[in-house]
Amino acid sequence: MPDTQPSADGMRVLADLNALRALGAYKTGVHKPTFSEPHRQSLDWLVRKLPGAGLAPTIDGIGNVFGTSATPGPKLLAGSHLESQNYAGWLDGPLGVVYALEAARVLNIDPSVKGAVEVAAWCDEEGHFGSFLGSRSYIGQVSETEINAARDRTDGRTMRDALGDMGLAGRARITAEPGRHVGYLEAHIEQGDTLESGQLAIGVVTSIVGIWQYRIDFTGEQNHAGTTRMAVRKDAGLALAKFCVTIDQRFPAACGPRTVWTTGRVTLDPGAPSIIPGGAEMLFQIRDDDPSVIARLEELLRIVADEVNANGPCTVTVEKIRTGAPAMMNAGFQDAIDAASKAFAGGRSIRMPSGAGHDAQMLATIMPAGMLFVPSIGGISHHWTENTADADIVTGAEVFVDACRRILGG
Amino acid sequence: MPDTQPSADGMRVLADLNALRALGAYKTGVHKPTFSEPHRQSLDWLVRKLPGAGLAPTIDGIGNVFGTSATPGPKLLAGSHLESQNYAGWLDGPLGVVYALEAARVLNIDPSVKGAVEVAAWCDEEGHFGSFLGSRSYIGQVSETEINAARDRTDGRTMRDALGDMGLAGRARITAEPGRHVGYLEAHIEQGDTLESGQLAIGVVTSIVGIWQYRIDFTGEQNHAGTTRMAVRKDAGLALAKFCVTIDQRFPAACGPRTVWTTGRVTLDPGAPSIIPGGAEMLFQIRDDDPSVIARLEELLRIVADEVNANGPCTVTVEKIRTGAPAMMNAGFQDAIDAASKAFAGGRSIRMPSGAGHDAQMLATIMPAGMLFVPSIGGISHHWTENTADADIVTGAEVFVDACRRILGG
Repeated sequence: MPDTQPSADGMRVLADLNALRALGAYKTGVHKPTFSEPHRQSLDWLVRKLPGAGLAPTIDGIGNVFGTSATPGPKLLAGSHLESQNYAGWLDGPLGVVYALEAARVLNIDPSVKGAVEVAAWCDEEGHFGSFLGSRSYIGQVSETEINAARDRTDGRTMRDALGDMGLAGRARITAEPGRHVGYLEAHIEQGDTLESGQLAIGVVTSIVGIWQYRIDFTGEQNHAGTTRMAVRKDAGLALAKFCVTIDQRFPAACGPRTVWTTGRVTLDPGAPSIIPGGAEMLFQIRDDDPSVIARLEELLRIVADEVNANGPCTVTVEKIRTGAPAMMNAGFQDAIDAASKAFAGGRSIRMPSGAGHDAQMLATIMPAGMLFVPSIGGISHHWTENTADADIVTGAEVFVDACRRILGG
Repeated sequence: MPDTQPSADGMRVLADLNALRALGAYKTGVHKPTFSEPHRQSLDWLVRKLPGAGLAPTIDGIGNVFGTSATPGPKLLAGSHLESQNYAGWLDGPLGVVYALEAARVLNIDPSVKGAVEVAAWCDEEGHFGSFLGSRSYIGQVSETEINAARDRTDGRTMRDALGDMGLAGRARITAEPGRHVGYLEAHIEQGDTLESGQLAIGVVTSIVGIWQYRIDFTGEQNHAGTTRMAVRKDAGLALAKFCVTIDQRFPAACGPRTVWTTGRVTLDPGAPSIIPGGAEMLFQIRDDDPSVIARLEELLRIVADEVNANGPCTVTVEKIRTGAPAMMNAGFQDAIDAASKAFAGGRSIRMPSGAGHDAQMLATIMPAGMLFVPSIGGISHHWTENTADADIVTGAEVFVDACRRILGG
């Protein structure tokens, strides 16, 4: 009931998001890698804000921030992440954290609401040191061994050193308390153009697609770029380039309507202008919500690799390093977001899968989970030009707070 | 006259080369990047050895080591370099320095020899911070501005910081003294398999091929690897892969018999597994001793780039960042090496161009220059398995010392 019940304060939400943007600002976006100084400042910012929402703040041993409530009754966990990709957008992560904070500020002091909203900022959703380390730690799926081995993908700093630099060395990690939460709700920018092109305000997420990732390694023969004749070369970099082009030619006939695949990282060894690469590695990713499509593409990947090994001059190995499972969002939570969208966004919502991975997929394995999207201008994501119209940010906050209220039964 | 004149002491040469291998040893090779600790130790090693050859040692402000003689008469400059590529071979560089040191030890105390051999170890021939910085500085072609801008290609350390770490900050650079030297002689491993496959002991270098280098930059659109449909992607990494494959298909019809081309380094921007690369860069190199062949290939490179720009979805720019000019070796020096080869290697020599660049090409622009190659086992170069048989190393030293004697007129 927008007219009678306290709702989100849009100006407060925008002010908070801009305060977070000022920490690690890069052009109109941010450069806030996990465990960087601006990331540390952002965690501290949240710690200072949580008491104002009736929540006791903690940072745990993996860099997750929690705001917990002593109020009796049902508790809804809400949040997202505060670090960014390198030189990327200002809303990817912080939007969901500030919405959660705002929901707590509005609802935790509203006597008509049962229980409370609790807030979480999950560490390293963006994968600088691993894959969903913060939320996966919370659901009990990260070992100390994994943390010992983790390194910053950009500069190679070990995660142990980074945790020490953050003042978190030796601190305990917090895992989920069974039965404490009625569920988890997360808001995020869409990172695509479905909402914008349909002139919609809210995406009600139905599922999060699975991500399958492969390390594809080529071995040739390192040699001198001036003295080795073309005819006798075994150039691992060229073998990699041919592999990428072959995938581009043959995947379309085998994929599903929503399948996407990406080679995001390539390394030549040793990577010097006067040396023929003796080794080359690519990280290759496939996303779909249909495991049978993935199985078909994985088979094709191995066929192409077998052809390389049969024909030479280089050899290749394909190693699966990540197996995705699609995560389904809770039906009741989807209904709550839809109802909130009718109340605050004129019903301009659509049900849609998420092509991107989110912490909600980790939480969905132990409790009911839901997600809400707001539009991304031009569909741009993971780049500093990523943006959302202020009006859409405010509408999203109102819908989010109302959805939390409905889930708590306020 | 091998029977009557003092010649190289093969065991001393091998002992010196192994002493240098022990500094920065990596498996059977070395990891001795420019201005690393083992590189510093190697320069100091040479400084300690030079007085034993009747030479006064100096390290100049760019890390060049010189051994200069006070003896009247003609002076022949001889040398090579002491740093290595990363995790590379033990002889690439040190062989020529130790041969020069040995020639000085033998000839500078021989009363039948006129004048003296002076020794140089040129800094950064391997291009960690730039292109032939040491020898190019000696011929007066390196500005302070260039040094200010130079960075280690592996870790980004500035050259100024590195010079400071070496204790060389503020030290003057030494440039060639006009008329001091009758010429420059350098020995090096072949880095190819011409000598080994012909069962030859000595390569008499006729010319050093030119190197043309290009920075080829692709611009697409950075976006999220999960939410961006394949149909609307502008993947700069894929555009780069296609470019490499097109070159591989079309260069063979336009190249010369000895032309080689190499993509040694590739960078995707931002290089994260879940981000479609918005930018991609490759360093591309062509080598030939015929500028007309280069002109033809450069034209083809631009045609292929024009096709990319016309067809999309990415754009590409081709920037020439290095223009090579073939360097001719002095005819009299070639004759001297051939004569020495007849005396000490049973005439098992061949005249051949060098496909690799060497400091000799810089020295050749200001004085007569010559080069001598010894065989490389399996033609392997720029890898820690690079090697030369001990017997070939000793024969090469004997030929080198005798060639120096002949040039000085001993």
